[in-house]
Amino acid sequence: MATAMEAPDPKHDLALGLCEVMAAIDRRGWCDGTGGNFSCVLRRQPLALVMAPSGVEKGGLKPADLIVVNDQGEVVEGKGRASAETLLHLAIVAEREAGAVLHTHSQAATLLSRLAEIKGDPLAAQGWQLKIKGLEMLKGLEGIRSHEQQIAIPVLPNDQDLGRLSQLARRHLDEAPFGILISGHGLYAWGDDLAMAKRHLEILEFLLEQHWRELQLRSLGNGMETTP
Amino acid sequence: MATAMEAPDPKHDLALGLCEVMAAIDRRGWCDGTGGNFSCVLRRQPLALVMAPSGVEKGGLKPADLIVVNDQGEVVEGKGRASAETLLHLAIVAEREAGAVLHTHSQAATLLSRLAEIKGDPLAAQGWQLKIKGLEMLKGLEGIRSHEQQIAIPVLPNDQDLGRLSQLARRHLDEAPFGILISGHGLYAWGDDLAMAKRHLEILEFLLEQHWRELQLRSLGNGMETTP
Amino acid sequence: MATAMEAPDPKHDLALGLCEVMAAIDRRGWCDGTGGNFSCVLRRQPLALVMAPSGVEKGGLKPADLIVVNDQGEVVEGKGRASAETLLHLAIVAEREAGAVLHTHSQAATLLSRLAEIKGDPLAAQGWQLKIKGLEMLKGLEGIRSHEQQIAIPVLPNDQDLGRLSQLARRHLDEAPFGILISGHGLYAWGDDLAMAKRHLEILEFLLEQHWRELQLRSLGNGMETTP
Amino acid sequence: MATAMEAPDPKHDLALGLCEVMAAIDRRGWCDGTGGNFSCVLRRQPLALVMAPSGVEKGGLKPADLIVVNDQGEVVEGKGRASAETLLHLAIVAEREAGAVLHTHSQAATLLSRLAEIKGDPLAAQGWQLKIKGLEMLKGLEGIRSHEQQIAIPVLPNDQDLGRLSQLARRHLDEAPFGILISGHGLYAWGDDLAMAKRHLEILEFLLEQHWRELQLRSLGNGMETTP
Repeated sequence: MATAMEAPDPKHDLALGLCEVMAAIDRRGWCDGTGGNFSCVLRRQPLALVMAPSGVEKGGLKPADLIVVNDQGEVVEGKGRASAETLLHLAIVAEREAGAVLHTHSQAATLLSRLAEIKGDPLAAQGWQLKIKGLEMLKGLEGIRSHEQQIAIPVLPNDQDLGRLSQLARRHLDEAPFGILISGHGLYAWGDDLAMAKRHLEILEFLLEQHWRELQLRSLGNGMETTP
Repeated sequence: MATAMEAPDPKHDLALGLCEVMAAIDRRGWCDGTGGNFSCVLRRQPLALVMAPSGVEKGGLKPADLIVVNDQGEVVEGKGRASAETLLHLAIVAEREAGAVLHTHSQAATLLSRLAEIKGDPLAAQGWQLKIKGLEMLKGLEGIRSHEQQIAIPVLPNDQDLGRLSQLARRHLDEAPFGILISGHGLYAWGDDLAMAKRHLEILEFLLEQHWRELQLRSLGNGMETTP
Repeated sequence: MATAMEAPDPKHDLALGLCEVMAAIDRRGWCDGTGGNFSCVLRRQPLALVMAPSGVEKGGLKPADLIVVNDQGEVVEGKGRASAETLLHLAIVAEREAGAVLHTHSQAATLLSRLAEIKGDPLAAQGWQLKIKGLEMLKGLEGIRSHEQQIAIPVLPNDQDLGRLSQLARRHLDEAPFGILISGHGLYAWGDDLAMAKRHLEILEFLLEQHWRELQLRSLGNGMETTP
Repeated sequence: MATAMEAPDPKHDLALGLCEVMAAIDRRGWCDGTGGNFSCVLRRQPLALVMAPSGVEKGGLKPADLIVVNDQGEVVEGKGRASAETLLHLAIVAEREAGAVLHTHSQAATLLSRLAEIKGDPLAAQGWQLKIKGLEMLKGLEGIRSHEQQIAIPVLPNDQDLGRLSQLARRHLDEAPFGILISGHGLYAWGDDLAMAKRHLEILEFLLEQHWRELQLRSLGNGMETTP
């Protein structure tokens, strides 16, 4: 945070906040290897995102390690390469007016994103929706006021052509206020600012792990006794 | 802790203790997003609770971030909003004479709170009890002297009307010495003071995770071999 | 560690080592609430154990918080109460010539200790053995030279009369070089000194969690494909 | 890192990096007890590996605690014994030109390495391959460009004769660019340098845990609903 004696540096503050969020995400095991990618909007006109470079561990980054990319996904400041997935970040920033986008590879998100594929459901190839309701934690998502409200997370087929994948995502983002899953790939979560994006990420990860446990519980035939 | 040279400040000490407990709870993943809520009784006459404000991450709070609420759930000191769930904290403080109330959203508590609902049991709508026995860890609950004693945790249906939910809870609190579950929502645990509330929370969370594993173990048909 | 200028203080060194081990155990969630108990032999003649007092959280203790107990389980130094389970520590120190005893309450140990009981096996009431083989990690147990060697961990029924339980344990300790399970209660692990006891604890906890996963894997009917 | 005023010390830098990696691996519970072993190539001509000594906890080592071994697995610098598994490290360094080798004992790797054995598959005794595809995280492995590429991890039977086991491994290493599993034992992962080896380790551990969850998901008969 800039003191009274220093010129304020919004980029540094944003980058520092993003580094702290990435470190917290890494501690939870949601971006193992050099997985995941993370960005914040630095300005809208012209569009500039502060983001982690591709191919590095995200848990130990410092503000100076981050890059700035423009609306074409080109690096305009800093050292390092922009991930091909930057196109998806840009699509989300454009379509959802998100201020921050957090993309993780957790166990639960990866597993449930493949539910249709693992079932052999033909929807796997064209995209489907994972629906969740009945949980108070849903209220951690902006605008959800009751556990009885159902959310539907779009699940898109994975594609190594990120231009094509981001075009497909653009067509589904109007029905995705908080996040999307890419099959076999992971979760994108976002929000108006970094704090909201982190909150949405934690809530969606909680809900996905809970959904996985619920699938296991539903398959248990016996031993489930409730008593008045 | 106040030194000999300073005026003692029981509110600061209590708030500091509560912040440390919230940080520990956050590290375990029991209050993701801005979930959970946490309070300590500052004084009884007139009643005042030190508590975390609503809508913030609980893991990184400092004593100055906490609020004080009165027996109507109104904020009388500090910045921030009191959660609607304050009514449930007040009900527990009144009915159980609790000195601290800790409300978490863990995976196991959320899952098992929905056991009746997931089974399609009509009790889900009116409330039921989750019963646990046979575990030494039960003795971590105040007054339990043997693993053979059974506890029954009331499980209440969730309700976005917290006035109505806290009224319902009041009718069940005489049978709930340590905690209650709200379906699809999470656990409330409490104790005479903060240390006892933390102990009860950790014990109940342990017992719930253990109960979930026991349900899984009971459903395994084979491979379970014991030998004399 | 005492420097050349200070009188050596073996009790302080031992207590400090024990506090570090307890903190590590607490971080893993193996002594939630005020669960678990932990001791080291300070001297043999007359017997004295440095140990954690009963009824406190074990994760944040300092050397000055520990107590010294004699061979009757009576506190001879320090503030605090000796756990009733001290009798079991003393039995293990006597029968196995252990230098340190670590007693934990983990999810896997608690669950598997009840395997016979959950199966409705009449052996549950009289004690049985949990057998494990085929795992390289067995070699972390002193004297085990091959993954093909089988170990048999005695599992004793729980008993709130610790005098009776420690007498029962004494009759089984000659067949228990590393640890015993108490049903629904948890694991006791030990070793010639604190480092070996910690190693045995971590190995046994690993093997128990692995055994639990193996039981789950064995019960999966399909989806298990191996290819040459 | 050596400063301009100091003579550069590549061995110290390498050893420090390895100690940091071992501490991170220990925090994840992948080398409990004194399990696991870890090495980096210090020089090729004549071959020298910096590595952790045998029989010690790996999580708290300092550079001065490490040993240097030659191409016969003999200790040429430092105090401590070289693990018998050094022969396997040397085989991997020779056959794969690896710069670093990380050997862990995680729950998922240990469990899945025994899949053939647990199924009673005769391949268990002669070695088989664990195949994984469809996951974006595969791209964290050097040279993998698409989630559609399948990898095949050789799984070799365990053998306490490490000379024989390393000879067997040499025959399979040409089909193992990233890692191998030893049945009931654990994972060896490697890379051109320490950073790549750590990345491959984290990716393979992620994929193995995911594969275990996928096996569980595939065995659930009901409750798996996807909706368009």
